[in-house]
Amino acid sequence: MQVWKDYQEKNKERFLNELLELLRIPSISAKSENKQDMVTCAEAVKQRLLAAGVDKAELIETEGHPIVYGEKIIDPAKPTVLVYGHYDVQPAEPLELWKSGPFDPVIIDGKIFARGSCDDKGQVYMHVKALETMLQTGTLKNNIKFCIEGEEEVGSPNLGKFVATHKELLKADCVLISDTAMLSLDTPSIDTGVRGLSYIEVELTGPSRDLHSGVYGGAVANPITILAKMIASLHDENNHVTIPGFYDDVVEATAEERALMAKAPYDEAAYKEDLGVQELWGEKGFTTNERTGIRPTIELNGIWGGYTGEGAKTVLPSKAFAKISARLVPDQGSDKITKLLIDHLHSITPATVTLKASLHHGGEPYMTPIDSVAYKAAAKAMEATFGKAPIPVRGGGSIPICALFEKELGIKIVFMGFGLDSDNLHSPNEKFNVDNYYKGIETIPYFHQYFTEMS
Amino acid sequence: MQVWKDYQEKNKERFLNELLELLRIPSISAKSENKQDMVTCAEAVKQRLLAAGVDKAELIETEGHPIVYGEKIIDPAKPTVLVYGHYDVQPAEPLELWKSGPFDPVIIDGKIFARGSCDDKGQVYMHVKALETMLQTGTLKNNIKFCIEGEEEVGSPNLGKFVATHKELLKADCVLISDTAMLSLDTPSIDTGVRGLSYIEVELTGPSRDLHSGVYGGAVANPITILAKMIASLHDENNHVTIPGFYDDVVEATAEERALMAKAPYDEAAYKEDLGVQELWGEKGFTTNERTGIRPTIELNGIWGGYTGEGAKTVLPSKAFAKISARLVPDQGSDKITKLLIDHLHSITPATVTLKASLHHGGEPYMTPIDSVAYKAAAKAMEATFGKAPIPVRGGGSIPICALFEKELGIKIVFMGFGLDSDNLHSPNEKFNVDNYYKGIETIPYFHQYFTEMS
Repeated sequence: MQVWKDYQEKNKERFLNELLELLRIPSISAKSENKQDMVTCAEAVKQRLLAAGVDKAELIETEGHPIVYGEKIIDPAKPTVLVYGHYDVQPAEPLELWKSGPFDPVIIDGKIFARGSCDDKGQVYMHVKALETMLQTGTLKNNIKFCIEGEEEVGSPNLGKFVATHKELLKADCVLISDTAMLSLDTPSIDTGVRGLSYIEVELTGPSRDLHSGVYGGAVANPITILAKMIASLHDENNHVTIPGFYDDVVEATAEERALMAKAPYDEAAYKEDLGVQELWGEKGFTTNERTGIRPTIELNGIWGGYTGEGAKTVLPSKAFAKISARLVPDQGSDKITKLLIDHLHSITPATVTLKASLHHGGEPYMTPIDSVAYKAAAKAMEATFGKAPIPVRGGGSIPICALFEKELGIKIVFMGFGLDSDNLHSPNEKFNVDNYYKGIETIPYFHQYFTEMS
Repeated sequence: MQVWKDYQEKNKERFLNELLELLRIPSISAKSENKQDMVTCAEAVKQRLLAAGVDKAELIETEGHPIVYGEKIIDPAKPTVLVYGHYDVQPAEPLELWKSGPFDPVIIDGKIFARGSCDDKGQVYMHVKALETMLQTGTLKNNIKFCIEGEEEVGSPNLGKFVATHKELLKADCVLISDTAMLSLDTPSIDTGVRGLSYIEVELTGPSRDLHSGVYGGAVANPITILAKMIASLHDENNHVTIPGFYDDVVEATAEERALMAKAPYDEAAYKEDLGVQELWGEKGFTTNERTGIRPTIELNGIWGGYTGEGAKTVLPSKAFAKISARLVPDQGSDKITKLLIDHLHSITPATVTLKASLHHGGEPYMTPIDSVAYKAAAKAMEATFGKAPIPVRGGGSIPICALFEKELGIKIVFMGFGLDSDNLHSPNEKFNVDNYYKGIETIPYFHQYFTEMS
C-alpha cells in the first residue's frame, strides 16, 4: 500500500537509528553478569511499544528475565495476531573475531553488524515499526498482541508457565514469529518448521587433581582422551548417530516430500564457498537441505580441558568438559532424547573416569501446516512486496516455545522471517541487511491486512 | 657431618624465608607477560649465589630468558661438580583450584605451597644453601659451578647453544641435578633416567566462521567432533599408541630389568586413593611403574573449541584446538617422533577440515648408569642422611637438556631429587615438604665430599 511505503520512506533513517539504540544493550540471557542489562533492554522494548502506539505495555516478572507484553486492541471482535519474539541474544564470544564491537553496531555495505541485529532484536523491531506505520496511516484493522521474551536463547525456561497461566491475556487467532531466515531477497521463503533441541553439558573427571603428565602419564586415564573417545563414538562411519533409540520417533519424510524439498534452490559450490570448506559432511543418504531440515543431529558446541593458554604446560588434567546438543525433528521429544543422550553417555563412560551430565535446556520440534489462514496470509504478503510467492522450506534452528504455544493456545504459528542463513547468527559479526529490515517493515502490514480479510 | 648440621639448624628459619622470597616472583617462562619477572628472578638467583659465596655470578643473555651462571673454584686441580637447575616455572592455571595464591607462598602442615616450590626453585635453592653451609664451615673441598636456566619448562630452546659454545666454562666432572622426586623420606630413591618429550599444538578448522548449530548442524563438519575422532584413534583398545613407527626405536626392557623394577615399593590401592580414581589406565601388558618409566605415551595436555563460557550457546564452531605431547624413552628421538606424530595427524585429517600442527618443544630421553662415580657418591650421600641406601628408579618426567649435557661435555648426570610424586608439580597447589627441603640441604654437602673422595 502506497501510504505505508510513503510513511516508511519518510521515517527510514529514524527506524534504523532506533534499532541501533536497542542493539547497544548487551542483553545476553545466558550470563548472570548481564542481568541488569536484560531489565534495561526489556524496559526499552516496552517504551518503544508505547511510543509506537500500543494501548498498554508492561514487564512481567518471571523467575528469570522479564517478559515484555503489549497490546493494541482495535475491536475485540476482530482477528488478533500474537507477535512473539525475543530481546535476549546469544553470548558474543569469541570476541576477538568480531570486526567491530558486538554491542557497538555499525553499518557497512548496507549491513547492520551487531549481536542481535537479526536474531532477534532487528526482526522484533520490524513489528514495532510496522505497528507504528499502520497506526500513523490509520490502516490497522485488527488487534495485535506482543509477547517479547528474554530467555529464548536459553531455552525459554519460564515462558511456558506464563503462557499456561495467561491464556486469556494471550488469546489470539495466530502466532506470528519473525525469528527465522529466508533464502534471499530474490527467493523469498517461509519456514514450515523448526527443529527441537536437547542441550547438555558434561564434566568428565579422571584424577582428583591435575597431574604432571610425565610423572603420571601412561598410568592414569586422561579425561580429554576418554572424552574424545566418547564423543567420537557418537557418530558411526556414515555419520549416523549411534545412540540407541535416537531415531525411533523420527517421522521419515515421504518420497514426495523429499522430491519437493529437492526443488528448493541449492548451489553446492556456492554453499561450500560461503562456508570456506572443501567438502561437506553429514548423514549418508541425505541431501544438505534434508540434513538441516528433516534429520536430527548431535553437535559439539564447546569443549575444554587442561591447559589452553599460551605456550606449553605438561599437565594430565583432572577434568574435561563439553557442551553437546541434539537438534530434533518431529516426533522426537526433547525430554526423551535428553535422557537417551545422558543415559548413553553414562553407559559408555569407563570406570577410569566419572561423568557428570546435566541439562542446559530443551525445546520441542514444531511443524506448521501450509494450508492455514496464517500461512496463506504470510505467503500473500510476501508476494505483495517481493513480487513472487515464497517457497516453503524446513528450518534447521529451534524456537523452543512453538509447540507449547500451539498446545496451550490452540492456534497455529506462522514463521515470517526476514534474515538470511548467512547472517552469522550465534557467531561473530552477526549482521542484518538494512534492505531486509525495511522489507520486513513493509511486508508485515500486508500480513495483518490479508490475515484480517481471510479470517 | 655435625658441623653442617649445627650451622643449618641455627640458620633454618632464614633458609626457609629466603626460599619464600624467591617463590614470590612469578617466573613463568611460557608467558610473554612475565618476561620482566623472568629477569627479576634470574637477578635474584644471581644475588643469592653471590651472597652464598661464589667467586662470580652473571646473567647470560639468550634469545629467550637469561641463564644464571656462577662458580666457586677452590682449586682447578680438584673435581668440579656442575649443578644444573631452573628458575622458571610452569603456568599456574587453573587458578581457581589453588587454595592459596600460586606466588604467595604459605606453609601449612609442614609443606610449602607455591608454584615452583619443588619444581624447581626449592630444589635449586637447596644447592645455594648447601654451598653457603660448606663455605661457612670451611668444609668445601671441590669446585662447584652453577648453571640455572630460565627455559626448562618450555623445552630449553636456548640452553643447547650456550652449552655448545661454552664447553670450557662449563667443564666439570659430573652434572648434579635436583629436579626429580624420591619415593618418600622413608624410602629414598634416585632416578636413573628421564623420559624425552615431543610437544605439539594442533588447530583444526572446519567452516571459515562460527555457524549457528541449528541452521548448519548436520551438513557441515564440526571441528570438535572431527578432532575427537582423530584423538580417539591415537590409542587402540589396548591403549597402545597407533601412530605407525612410534615404537620402532624403543629399547625393550629385559625380563631381568623388569623384575628389578617390580621390586620397587608400589601400593596400587594407595596410588589409586591418592589420585582419587577407581581404576588405573594404561598400555596393556605393563605395570604402573613400567608405564611411567620405560614406555612412551601420548597425552592430551589441553583441548578447547567452541563456546566454553557460562550457560549455552548453540554454535557450530569454526575451530578446535589441542595440545598434545608424547613422552619418549630410549632410543626414541624427539625430532623423529614429532614428525611421525604431525605426519600421522595430517594423514588422518579428513577433507572436511584443515589441520595446522606445530611443535612447541621437545627433549631427548636420557638414562644414567648406576656404576658411575657420581651415582655412587649420590647413593652414599643419601645413605648418610636417610640411614638407608636409595633405590634406583626410572622417572617419568623430562629434563630436556640431559642428553645434550652428556654429548657436549662428555660427562655423566646424576639425579639427586628430593621432591615427591605427590608434590603437585605442574598442578594447582604445588608443594614441597619443609623436611625434604632441609634434608636436601643436609645431603648435598655429603655428595660433594664423597664425589671428591671417590674421584
